[in-house]
Amino acid sequence: METLVPTAICRHRRIRIETGREVEFIDLTDRIEALAVEAGIHAGVINIQSLHTTTAIVINEHEPLLLTDFDTLLTRAAPRDASYRHDDMDVRTVNLTPGERRNGYAHCHALLLGSSASLNVADGRLQLGRWQRVFLVELDGPRARDISIMILGEGVR
Amino acid sequence: METLVPTAICRHRRIRIETGREVEFIDLTDRIEALAVEAGIHAGVINIQSLHTTTAIVINEHEPLLLTDFDTLLTRAAPRDASYRHDDMDVRTVNLTPGERRNGYAHCHALLLGSSASLNVADGRLQLGRWQRVFLVELDGPRARDISIMILGEGVR
Amino acid sequence: METLVPTAICRHRRIRIETGREVEFIDLTDRIEALAVEAGIHAGVINIQSLHTTTAIVINEHEPLLLTDFDTLLTRAAPRDASYRHDDMDVRTVNLTPGERRNGYAHCHALLLGSSASLNVADGRLQLGRWQRVFLVELDGPRARDISIMILGEGVR
Repeated sequence: METLVPTAICRHRRIRIETGREVEFIDLTDRIEALAVEAGIHAGVINIQSLHTTTAIVINEHEPLLLTDFDTLLTRAAPRDASYRHDDMDVRTVNLTPGERRNGYAHCHALLLGSSASLNVADGRLQLGRWQRVFLVELDGPRARDISIMILGEGVR
Repeated sequence: METLVPTAICRHRRIRIETGREVEFIDLTDRIEALAVEAGIHAGVINIQSLHTTTAIVINEHEPLLLTDFDTLLTRAAPRDASYRHDDMDVRTVNLTPGERRNGYAHCHALLLGSSASLNVADGRLQLGRWQRVFLVELDGPRARDISIMILGEGVR
Repeated sequence: METLVPTAICRHRRIRIETGREVEFIDLTDRIEALAVEAGIHAGVINIQSLHTTTAIVINEHEPLLLTDFDTLLTRAAPRDASYRHDDMDVRTVNLTPGERRNGYAHCHALLLGSSASLNVADGRLQLGRWQRVFLVELDGPRARDISIMILGEGVR
């Protein structure tokens, strides 16, 4: 008869996503679940962190029309055609790069949504409700985007 | 003389809340503190995760009039009587269930607030400022709602 | 030849910030990185939690004009001159203190931004993208503000 001994799990992974549109919700759930299985985590947390200032990580339902409602919500809060001081290149002097984008609205959208989400793992399974899915939200694409994923807790061996 | 040895803590709990109104802030703080004590955690983090797409977990002050201000804020950002494509049953084909609710606005409110919160524990106590309380926010109730709570860190024995 | 053995890290720190303006973004990144080094963390998560209900912890770009855009965004969502029931001292009876501030709008701003952020650590380094910085957001200052920081994961010795 085997005895299962808990063992500390602390595993980091990065994934890169090539986004295809200006605004896009990319469902990461299957990838996160595969990483949890690969790490052998039985219980703990997985922290999913975007490494960009015009993307977000959110959890909600994967229903295509709802995702367009989310875009409408963000645009109402910070319209694309409003005036942003971040985009005023006559005044701005900080963090300027060649080909600088006019993306003040996208930073605002990212600020409202947040750049990371922590999900629980229990009994070897990612804890997600029936309708919950994890998304990378592209807010100023298309671009290559990197996501840092930390898997922390205990496994069994 | 006893020596205290740190021991790894990784404990998962689920709690169910029966909400009573369409929009409701349910103070979870005492329940979270009781779970921390029960788990014997001395230091670490507690990740509180709602398992629904029309609820949120937030931390703010438990002052009843302020909670109505929060409802007003959300309604201003995503009005109940606005048009949501998620609610257009003539067009929508995905994730349809019998008795589907018109709740596009509630998903938008949940998106803005976020579905989880991580609280620190130190010296055996949940780290909360004087006015901070942890809430489950019901945004499309009343319903039965499940919350996943992961307690991760170290205890002493 | 040395063998590196992973060792559990669970370290808590508090820092106090004296804010100087009503609304202010205080860049905490260098302080967080110094705490990570001091703790000797090789991999894991750092949870940064504000202990107040009119502050927030956010991650975005440190470009001064963008920070004024963020203030504009918050003011649009919850205007300073709108009416908040939290500020109606003729009606309110809960959590009243001497010199109570009219700060319903600041609580609303804090609610939208969130009171904590979890950052990953891997290969001994805080995982932050090129433009990402961690901010304490003062929303009702100036005041003394406390931040709780939990560093959880593994080091090597």
